[in-house]
Formats: sequence, structure tokens, C-alpha cells
Amino acid sequence: MSTPGEEKVKISLLTAAKTLERTSIPLPPPSPTELQVAIRSTTLCGSDLHYYNHYRNGDIIVKAPLVLGHESSGVVTAVGEGVREKWSVGDRVALEVGVPCGECGECSSGRYNICSGMKFRSSAKADPHYWGTLQEKINHPARWCHKLPDNVSFTAAALLEPLSVAIHATRRARKLGTLGPSSSVLVLGAGAVGLLVSAMCKLSGASEIVISDINTGRTSFAVENGFATHVHRPTIRQKRPETIEEKLDISKDSANTAKTTLGREEGFDVTFECTGMEICTQTGIYATRSGGSLVLLGMGNPIQTLPISAAALREVDILGGFRYANTYKEGVEIVSSGLIPALEEVVTHKMTGVEGVQEAFEMAGRQVDDAGALVIKVECAFEGDT
Amino acid sequence: MSTPGEEKVKISLLTAAKTLERTSIPLPPPSPTELQVAIRSTTLCGSDLHYYNHYRNGDIIVKAPLVLGHESSGVVTAVGEGVREKWSVGDRVALEVGVPCGECGECSSGRYNICSGMKFRSSAKADPHYWGTLQEKINHPARWCHKLPDNVSFTAAALLEPLSVAIHATRRARKLGTLGPSSSVLVLGAGAVGLLVSAMCKLSGASEIVISDINTGRTSFAVENGFATHVHRPTIRQKRPETIEEKLDISKDSANTAKTTLGREEGFDVTFECTGMEICTQTGIYATRSGGSLVLLGMGNPIQTLPISAAALREVDILGGFRYANTYKEGVEIVSSGLIPALEEVVTHKMTGVEGVQEAFEMAGRQVDDAGALVIKVECAFEGDT
Amino acid sequence: MSTPGEEKVKISLLTAAKTLERTSIPLPPPSPTELQVAIRSTTLCGSDLHYYNHYRNGDIIVKAPLVLGHESSGVVTAVGEGVREKWSVGDRVALEVGVPCGECGECSSGRYNICSGMKFRSSAKADPHYWGTLQEKINHPARWCHKLPDNVSFTAAALLEPLSVAIHATRRARKLGTLGPSSSVLVLGAGAVGLLVSAMCKLSGASEIVISDINTGRTSFAVENGFATHVHRPTIRQKRPETIEEKLDISKDSANTAKTTLGREEGFDVTFECTGMEICTQTGIYATRSGGSLVLLGMGNPIQTLPISAAALREVDILGGFRYANTYKEGVEIVSSGLIPALEEVVTHKMTGVEGVQEAFEMAGRQVDDAGALVIKVECAFEGDT
Amino acid sequence: MSTPGEEKVKISLLTAAKTLERTSIPLPPPSPTELQVAIRSTTLCGSDLHYYNHYRNGDIIVKAPLVLGHESSGVVTAVGEGVREKWSVGDRVALEVGVPCGECGECSSGRYNICSGMKFRSSAKADPHYWGTLQEKINHPARWCHKLPDNVSFTAAALLEPLSVAIHATRRARKLGTLGPSSSVLVLGAGAVGLLVSAMCKLSGASEIVISDINTGRTSFAVENGFATHVHRPTIRQKRPETIEEKLDISKDSANTAKTTLGREEGFDVTFECTGMEICTQTGIYATRSGGSLVLLGMGNPIQTLPISAAALREVDILGGFRYANTYKEGVEIVSSGLIPALEEVVTHKMTGVEGVQEAFEMAGRQVDDAGALVIKVECAFEGDT
Repeated sequence: MSTPGEEKVKISLLTAAKTLERTSIPLPPPSPTELQVAIRSTTLCGSDLHYYNHYRNGDIIVKAPLVLGHESSGVVTAVGEGVREKWSVGDRVALEVGVPCGECGECSSGRYNICSGMKFRSSAKADPHYWGTLQEKINHPARWCHKLPDNVSFTAAALLEPLSVAIHATRRARKLGTLGPSSSVLVLGAGAVGLLVSAMCKLSGASEIVISDINTGRTSFAVENGFATHVHRPTIRQKRPETIEEKLDISKDSANTAKTTLGREEGFDVTFECTGMEICTQTGIYATRSGGSLVLLGMGNPIQTLPISAAALREVDILGGFRYANTYKEGVEIVSSGLIPALEEVVTHKMTGVEGVQEAFEMAGRQVDDAGALVIKVECAFEGDT
Repeated sequence: MSTPGEEKVKISLLTAAKTLERTSIPLPPPSPTELQVAIRSTTLCGSDLHYYNHYRNGDIIVKAPLVLGHESSGVVTAVGEGVREKWSVGDRVALEVGVPCGECGECSSGRYNICSGMKFRSSAKADPHYWGTLQEKINHPARWCHKLPDNVSFTAAALLEPLSVAIHATRRARKLGTLGPSSSVLVLGAGAVGLLVSAMCKLSGASEIVISDINTGRTSFAVENGFATHVHRPTIRQKRPETIEEKLDISKDSANTAKTTLGREEGFDVTFECTGMEICTQTGIYATRSGGSLVLLGMGNPIQTLPISAAALREVDILGGFRYANTYKEGVEIVSSGLIPALEEVVTHKMTGVEGVQEAFEMAGRQVDDAGALVIKVECAFEGDT
Repeated sequence: MSTPGEEKVKISLLTAAKTLERTSIPLPPPSPTELQVAIRSTTLCGSDLHYYNHYRNGDIIVKAPLVLGHESSGVVTAVGEGVREKWSVGDRVALEVGVPCGECGECSSGRYNICSGMKFRSSAKADPHYWGTLQEKINHPARWCHKLPDNVSFTAAALLEPLSVAIHATRRARKLGTLGPSSSVLVLGAGAVGLLVSAMCKLSGASEIVISDINTGRTSFAVENGFATHVHRPTIRQKRPETIEEKLDISKDSANTAKTTLGREEGFDVTFECTGMEICTQTGIYATRSGGSLVLLGMGNPIQTLPISAAALREVDILGGFRYANTYKEGVEIVSSGLIPALEEVVTHKMTGVEGVQEAFEMAGRQVDDAGALVIKVECAFEGDT
Repeated sequence: MSTPGEEKVKISLLTAAKTLERTSIPLPPPSPTELQVAIRSTTLCGSDLHYYNHYRNGDIIVKAPLVLGHESSGVVTAVGEGVREKWSVGDRVALEVGVPCGECGECSSGRYNICSGMKFRSSAKADPHYWGTLQEKINHPARWCHKLPDNVSFTAAALLEPLSVAIHATRRARKLGTLGPSSSVLVLGAGAVGLLVSAMCKLSGASEIVISDINTGRTSFAVENGFATHVHRPTIRQKRPETIEEKLDISKDSANTAKTTLGREEGFDVTFECTGMEICTQTGIYATRSGGSLVLLGMGNPIQTLPISAAALREVDILGGFRYANTYKEGVEIVSSGLIPALEEVVTHKMTGVEGVQEAFEMAGRQVDDAGALVIKVECAFEGDT
């Protein structure tokens, strides 16, 4: 039935740092513009983990219990009155969990990712908080549900969210002409975003993709699975740098070793910073060629001391990449066409059901599991009977 | 010796339609800014063939005997005084055969392909004609010679010229945002340019590349060798169309079958027209989605009757793609990195020496050889002893 | 009162060619997302006139009585439940009369002007027809109403619609880098769109703006009011051209005289075609410099025979400019800041009330009025008591 | 005579900090690709002044006596053999004093300003130093001389150099779509570059241009002469800020007051930083709207502590603007067309002859002259007899 009455659904509710409660809430039928979706997969992201560990994320403090999860897919279980034509119960969907205002200048000009009225699931920014997808079922605007072809798994569909971040970031560089066939790319950070950015660079025709991380398991994974072509080992000093000059020295050294990796004295066409660390932004400035781009994706230290003249005088443009806009259609096509063969490999661990959520978060906080296997991304899989 | 005296070199000289004379000319040492290059490979292009068959190319009439050939590579045999530092005898090079003025606004802003003072080898436009590369040795400005890595063959290096056309054309679409990961592309014409454009689209991340040609051998070749993903069979009518309305009907039918190939009612993100035929430009307009791009590469009918409102009202932008600028560095990197695995397959036939040039032109004019094998591109290979 | 009951409003209804009926219809209160607006000004456009004269517009045939008018402004008389916060009765508004679907890829990426689900007032394309603004009051989506500062008159606000066409078209050229400070521009056609395009070019910093029209009154008006800097007199032959060659000869002559006007042998950076005539598109191709842009705005002959190689080989890019997207905010700012001083001069005649509409259409079809004064744009002014 | 023999010319030679020697050197005839130019005007720039005061400029230390001056114009006195056709003795020219290598990727793709082989007059970077224009006559590559129309004065022609900086910087923003008709602009710093950037923004159609400087004479000058529309008074605290948090507080306050100036809660479309001060870059980040651009032009503190997340998360892109490329043609057209009416007003003081150079530098270092009049830019005028 497409308009069921209210029902009880199980959710995983964050009530304090490291405290997830399994509980139930009543779910009303979808409004006229919504779909009701039984969640099948939610993959966990660094910001989820930050909320879980600290009950805050950077400056954003959780003010009331919050459901996490925003990389998500599922199955339609009910269809709102106003959207019946296009949708059916049983449709498989990826959820785009940020709902922009739809009316501001940014929305109407296609940059809804920077809409100041954006409500984003699992973030504590909006008041009341807009709950995430670690619920058995949710109602979500049909406008922000994306139908999936049969050959796209629920896991891959959940990954469309971080892939969207990568699509958006690489699009920004492509528009400036610094990413395309034969480009040389440096990716700082080999977490899920770094890996997916690398994949998008490869798909854009880059011939050399150097990935850098102190976690050598991750960089090996990146090359073995075809995300990147080369590995850069960051410079690590025995003695902790104390002055900005020392930090800059290290970041310059690191930039030079990155350039040496490819034998590119002139530097990289584009660098993607996916760690949020000051020393990485510094390295990115030095490692990028004159006229190249440095795209900032990492969420980390909000205030950084940077060799800004080394960017400005060489016209190394520093671009932000915040979430994504208009990426899901492209993402679905990419995944469906098999253009990123190792995509699902980034999910290294899977837990089942609302019961498995806390274990998933614990695992997501580790570098390797008990067996010594690499942890990259952890999936919460909810099984339904649809 | 890097500055030899004048010597005799054999050349293949076009003196009338279908008449190539084998003769010799004296070659002076290179000027201070030139390299002397022993030609190793010249692959033949449609414009060469047109000159050969008609002693003209479109509006451009040959006014004096002309040496053809402009897709070319070789080995440095002498180095001009002013360029000694960077170059050595024995260096392997690809020749960029168009020499722009270097001073006009187009040159200094990076669009030297449309420099009105361009001198282009093998074209009868300049007066005196600027001779092509079907000579044993030539002197060429060092500025327009590109050093080759060891893993790039002379044949592949000659193909950098038509690949440059493809790089330039796809860059234009990429800049407009219509070509990139997940794009859908229609390529009209499966000659060498159409094939290389397809390859560049694939390398740019396009998920669907439909290639169209009445020569089904070529379209099969395209898909089998990974240049394109799908084949479109052009609509061919028994009765020759007589009115513009009939022509437009056929081109619209053809556009619709192309869209059907992919199940894309909305049309292609970008269409590359590589035939120069009016009916193909028409088809391209209809087959491209609103907001998409139609890039014109084919040299054919200079005056065409087009459904221009069907382009303008849907903002299908019609871009020219004339030769190339700043493509060789990218091309060398692409070929050297193996990003177009089947590149050399487009050379289906090879003739040897100045003696083989006429036979090469005869073969280049055929669709299939005596054995029934497909003819795409014919190479004139000159062997030296360097 | 912000939610009045149904009331009677007078409208001007086109029931056949040249037949406007004055009648009344009931108007319900605005829906939750609408504003009710008392129309104050509607300026007439060429497409309105075409519908009036022929009961069709190009291929679009009127299937049921239709209210014309789409360049419009007014005063809010009632506010829908869902939009109360931002809006008040008495607010002065410009109406953006095209309502896109809001859900397709074009809408979400900011190009809603080419949304295939667009409903546009006064056009007979949608079924049922979406009536225009020649009504005393209408209900219109609040999302597509733009609040006016006090210093923007209702007349100027109506002109924001054709100004939007000009903003959009010039933005397209600006994005390609062919319009900006010191650019040279050719505008073919000195109707309202041609004049406003000229004004936008001037505001973009163009140093030379040549306007061309066979109506010398209009070109004189253009220069006297600061829209353009120079006038080009089109080549007119005694004998009507019969072959395409003759037509091309004339268009080439005309292009050359345009270039001579500025002493620019190399041609214009950008040409805006605002007539829809084949000979003007041809002229535009010849008159534009290599690497320049030709923007097509005119609605005229949908099938044209063009010297397409003269565009493609010189990379003169041919762009469509269809309506507009995201222009009203910019337009309001431009008008409010007085950046187009002579804007309202393009309205040469004003008729009052629903009673004056037919007279307005008759005047709009003339080149000069009975007194010999130039007719450019005719306004239908409705006076309310708010 | 177009090829004179060697002659003696007077020069002003910097031999130590604040020490200019008047001396003479022999000048050979121009080489085949050069023009010999009698200098008529050189306007002084901040970097000249820095060299004069400190015998260094930032990291660049003067290693041998140096002639300063790089904003310059003059008259052709001799023409090299190879450039005779286009040039005549008596031609009036503006000098583009940076001579790029002409062969690298940046040069051939049109971004020669970031050519790593650039030789720039008056800079101590190249070895030997490439002397500036404070000489009676110099030989300069004809390729980098720009012919002047009669209505462009020598003073205006010298100003084409800083105007080029402004053209280049505003072009970068225009390409990103953040500068154009109706844009709102913040300019930090009201020196010559800030003023000329403001002028270029106005010419680009910006409706609101807020200029900020602690020197209120300069900001008043800016508004009175039509460079800017509004003035922002930077926040100045009694107590010197000691921590980065205090600095950020001040810069955020200052950003907010700038936004208040226009009533633009959302911030400026584009900010041009023309001071090189950390606090201004910080202010620029906060003051720019989401999706806007911050262009860095100021030469100052090379290492800055910045609220980088406030840029990245709002996609405020940080672009460098280093010198200029392909700007002189545009600059000549702008000046010749009178598009910046108050251009020459930025030259507030003029000294004559090689004898006047030291006095010029002393004046250039002051905020006001003895009479209390504002000092913006000082010109060294050399009079010839041609």
C-alpha cells in the first residue's frame, strides 16, 4: 500500500559521546512530496565518527539526541500523493541527504551545495537537528531520491555520497583546465575521499596520480586497486617542529619528494588536500605547479598558517570543495557503467542491523581490525523484507 | 657533426593530380633556430589525399609543385647553433608542422591554431608553399619539435598530429562542461579523426560513445578496439533526398536512432562532426541535448543548410575545432603512458621509402585493400641509418 | 486582506487573429505558494505581436483563447499561506513569467531556461495555455516574483524581461571571454532586444558597439541614447538575390562594411544576431573575428543556409541565447543603480487599461506613429488603487 | 637614421640603499629584433621604492648596481633590421617590460606572466639584472613594444603597466563569473593598484565598489574621481592585537563593517586584496560571499595565518594575480577610448629628467607632500627632442 499509516521504526540514536541507543520512533506516512524509504545501506563517514566520539563536530555542538548517517541507499516503501507518477514501491534509491532551500540565488544558479538554508541529514547544524539515515525507514523528499539501475548495489549506492564529494571537487579543477587527460595529480590523504578523488582523476584521464598518507596500508591499497599510480611517503621528522619555519621546511621537503616521485620539477597540475592538516595545505601549495590548482577538501584545522605568497605569485589557485551539487546523476552513470571497478573495495567492513551500529562506529575508529586487516570504510547494512 | 654542409635529399614531389615525382633537392644546414630531422614516419591524412587526387584542397589550389605530408616524426641529424643546449643529434622527435607567427594576439594568448600568419607544412595556402614531410630530411624550427620518450614509436609519434586534433576538439567541449566523466558522446564519422576523438572522449571519462559511419567495417573496428562503446547506423534512403525538408527528415530520423541507441531521449551531451557532410551537421544538431555542444571537425561542404533554430532555441552551441594548439606535450604524455592502447591500430598499412609514397596514396584512397582488409590510415615509413 | 475570496478581474483575451476580447474571469485566492499581483505594466514583445497578428507564433499554433503579455510588473494584493513571511500586500514586484519544473537536471544545475518542462506565460506551447499578464490581476508563484526597490518604476520593471534576455546573452559571451572591457561588438537588429543587448555590452566595458538595422530611425536612436557607439548600414541591393551565392556575397559585403566602420580588419570580438534573418546570421559569421562568438537571439527563419566552414575553420563559436535564467536579481540591481540611463526610452508609447490593449497591439505593429515618431516598444499600463 | 652607431645615454643607477648615481653608459644600436626607444615617462611603483629604500625587494637582494623603473613609455629612435616593416622612427610606444622565454608551456598557452624564464626590467631576480627604464634610451624587443594612438599621452602609456595588473586580476574574476554587471566588489588598499582595480571593476559593470584604506585621503580620492562608489573604514584598535584570535576578531569585524556599508549581509561577489597584509587577507575571506572570489594582488607578508576553513567551506576561491599577460592591447583600447576618465589623476607628482629621479623616489615614499597634498604616484618625465 502506498500510503500506510504511522508505524514504529527502529533507530540508532546518539545521546552522548560514544553512546548509541537502540530505540523506536513512530514514522508517519510520507507527505505529498516525499518517498518513504527502507534504508538498506549506510556507510560511515569521518564526520559521523567525530560526532560519535565527541558529541560535536568542529564548532558544531550536538544540542539534542541525533541520528547519524548520511551515505545511504534503500528501497521505496511508500510514495507521497504528489509524486506518484514517477515512483513506485520497490524502487531502489540512493538518497541525496542535503535538502537545500530551493529558492536562493545559489540554488537557482546550480550551486545548491553552498545554499545557506541547506538542511543536511546527520548534521547538528540545523535546529532541530535533521536526523540521519541510521533508521529502519525514513521519509525523504522525492526530489532528492535518485532511482538506481539494477546493477548498482546498495553498498555502491551509499558510496555515491562520498563519490559525489569527489565528483564535485574534480569538476572544479576540470573547469579551471588543470584536470584532464595527461594531468598530473597529487592527492594528500588516502581515506575514502582521497581514494575516490583519485578514482575520479583517473577517470578524467590523469596519467599520474600520486597519493600520500602516513598510513602505508592505505597508499598500498590505493595503488593495488588502481585508484592511484604512485605513492608519496610524507616527510616525518623525529623531532616535532616547533616554529612555523620548521613546519614550512618540512612541508617544502615533502612537496619536493612528491615532485621527485614523478620527476616533475615543475610540480603537479592539481593537488587535492583531503586531510585538513595545516602541513598538508602547505605541502599542497609548494607541490603544485605555477598556474595549477589546490583543492581543499579536508575538514581539520580551521585556521592555518600558510606560505600564501608562494601560491599567489605563482597563481596556484586555492579552491574550496564543499560537499556537492548535481552529482548523483553522474555518479549513478559512473557506477552503473563500471567506470570505477574497485569502488566497493573501499568498504572493508560491514555490520548488520540497528544492533550493529555501535560496533560499526567502534570499527570505523580503527586503522586495522583485530586480524590486522586495513579499515577504510565501515558499512551499516539494514536488511528489509521488500 | 652538428652543422653539416649542404647535402642531397630525396623527396616525393606532387607535380600534378595523381603525379608524384621522386627527385632530389639540396638541403642546407639548419639555421640557428632549427633542427635538421631525418623523417622516419609520415602518416597520410585526408587533406593530403585531396591534394593528391585533385591538385587542390577545397578552395586552395596548388600553384607550384608541392611536397605533401604533415603527420610526422623522425630523428635529429643536426642542431642549429642557437638551440644546441637542449638538443642532441639522435634525439627522436615528433614534428609540429604548423609554424605560427608568434607575435599576434592569438599567438600570445595561446590560440595559435587560428593565427592568421600560420605557415602549415603540406598546405598550398602559403606562398611559396611550405613543403610537407615526405622528404628524407627537413630543417624545422626547434621550437616546434617535441622530444619523444623511448617508448613512443615513430608511428605513434606521427599519429600525435591527428591525435592533437582530437585533443583540441575534446578540450573545447570539456571547457564548456559537456565532456567529462559519465558524458554521452556521438561521433559522426569513423575515420582516423573520428576514432581518435572517440579515444579522447573515453579517456575523458565518457561512459557512452556512439560512433556512426556508413562504413560498417570502421564502426566495428571502433568498438572492437575500444575507441567507442556503441555503433549507430546512419539512416540511408533508397531515394536520394531532393528538398531540404527531405534532408532534414533523414537527419532527424538519424538523430533519433542515435538517441535510441543509448535510450537517451534527451540527446547527447556532445556531438563531434567528423565528416564535413551537411546531413551530419543537421543530425548533430538534432541529436545533441539542450545545452550540449556540437563540435565541427569535418572538412567538407563549406555552405550548409541547417535547422539553426533547433540549435539556438535549445542552446546547442556549435563550436569549430580547427587544428590544435598546445597539444603535443599532452599527446606525448598520453601515448607514453599507454592511455590509448589501440592507438597504432589505426595505421592499417605501411609503405617504405620515398619509393613507396605513390603506392601509399593509392592505398589511402581505398576503403579496403586487395585482401579485403579495412584501410584506415596509411603510413610512409622512411628508414635512416641513425 | 491577504486571503480574499474569489473575485472578478478584467482580461484581454485573444480569440482569433487581431481579435482581442475584453471580458472578465473569476480569480481565486492565491494558493499557498503564490502571490496575487495587480498588474501595473506589461510591455509588448515581438512574439506577442506575432500571436496577435497570426494566432500563431512560428510553429506554435494557438489552440484555445489566450491572454498575451509576459513583460510585466505589479503590486502584491494577496499573499499565499506558505509565503507570508517574506511578502506583504503592497510589495511592488517584477514577474518572472517562465515557471520551470524545478526538478530536472537543467533546473538543478542553473540552466532552467532550457528546462523542457518550462511553462511560460503568453505562450501557446503548454496545454492548457499558460495565460499572460494582460489581466488586471493574476496569481503567480512567489518563487518567481522579484521585489522591487522604490526607485524602479513599473515600466522599468516590465523591461526587466527583455533586459533579462540581454543579460543572459551577454553573460554567455562573457563566459567565453569575448565580451568585456575594450571588446568590439556588432549588434544586428535595433529592436528592443538589440538595444538592450547593446546596453549590456556597454555596461560590460565594450569600447565599440556597432548597431545595424535597415531602420535608420532605430540606429540613430541607439547612438543618441548611448546604447551603441557606431551605426552600420546594411548592404541593400536593388535586385533581390536569387541564389545562395548572391546572398552570401551580400552578407560578406555587409560584414566588410561593418568591419570598416571600426577599421577592424580582423572582425568583431562578438556579434549578437537579433533579427532571425538568414542574411544576418551569414553576416555575423563573416563579421566576427577568428576565435570570436556569434550569439543567436533572433527568432526568424528556423532553417538557414550558412557559410558554416567560415565559422568552424576560424573557431567562430555559434551560441544560442534562449530566454534567461538567474537574471532578475542582476537586472533589478542594474536598473536600481541607474546603470542603463536611457532604459525607459525604449518604451515609446503607452496605452492605458484593458481597454487600451488592442490599440497598443496596433501601434506595436508600426514603425512610426501618426506623428512620424519612432515606435520601439509599446506599454500597456494598468492602474490600480493599491 | 634607423641604425645609428653606439652612443652615450644618461641613466639613474641604484648603487646602494637610497643612493642613485647619475651616470652615462654606451648604448649599442638595436639588434635585429629590437627597437631603440627614448624614454619619455616612467611612473614609480611600490617595488621600485622598496629596492630604493632597502636595496632589496622581499627575498630578492640586489647583487649589482641596478636601474629601476618598469612603468614606461617613449618614442622609437631606431629600428632593428628584422622589424623594419612594421615600425618607424617616431612611433610612440608603451613598453611591456617583462620578456618571457616564449618557448615554455605557459608561454605558448597564453599565461606568460608565470613563465619561469621571464626577464623583468628593474627586478634583481635575473642574473645579470635586467635594467629598468630610468635611462634616456633603451633597446627593447619590438615584440614587447606597443604602438600608441595619438590620443594616449606618455603618462597614460606608462600607467598601462599598473593598469595591466588590474586588467589581469579582474579578468581572472570575470572568468569565474564573480565580476560583471551588477557585481559587488570590495577593494582592500587604495594605492595605485587598488584604484586601477576599482576602475576596471567599474568598467566591468560592477554596481557597488567599496574601497578600504586607513589613508582616508586616498579613499576620498577614489570616490571623488569615480574609481569606487563607497568607502569602508577599516577597524583599528587602540591595543595592538597579540593573538591570532584577536587578529581574526578584528578582521571579522572589519569584514562585517564592509558588508554593512552595502547592506549586503551575504558578502561581496569578489574582493581584491591590494595591500599584502595578513589582516586584509583575513578580512577578504570573511567579507566575500559564499561562492565568491578573493584575488590576492598585494605584495607583503609572504606567510599568513588565515581562517582557511571559512574560505574552503563556503567555496570562496583564493586566486593569485601575478603581473599580467595579453593586457596591453586591451589597455591601449581602454585608455584611447577614454573609458577611465580619471586615469591620469593617479599621477599626483611629476619630476623631470634623470636629475629628478632621486627627488621622485623621495616623494614616492611620502603620504602627502610639503603642501599637504596627497601623493599617489610619482612620474619621472624625460623630455627628448624627437
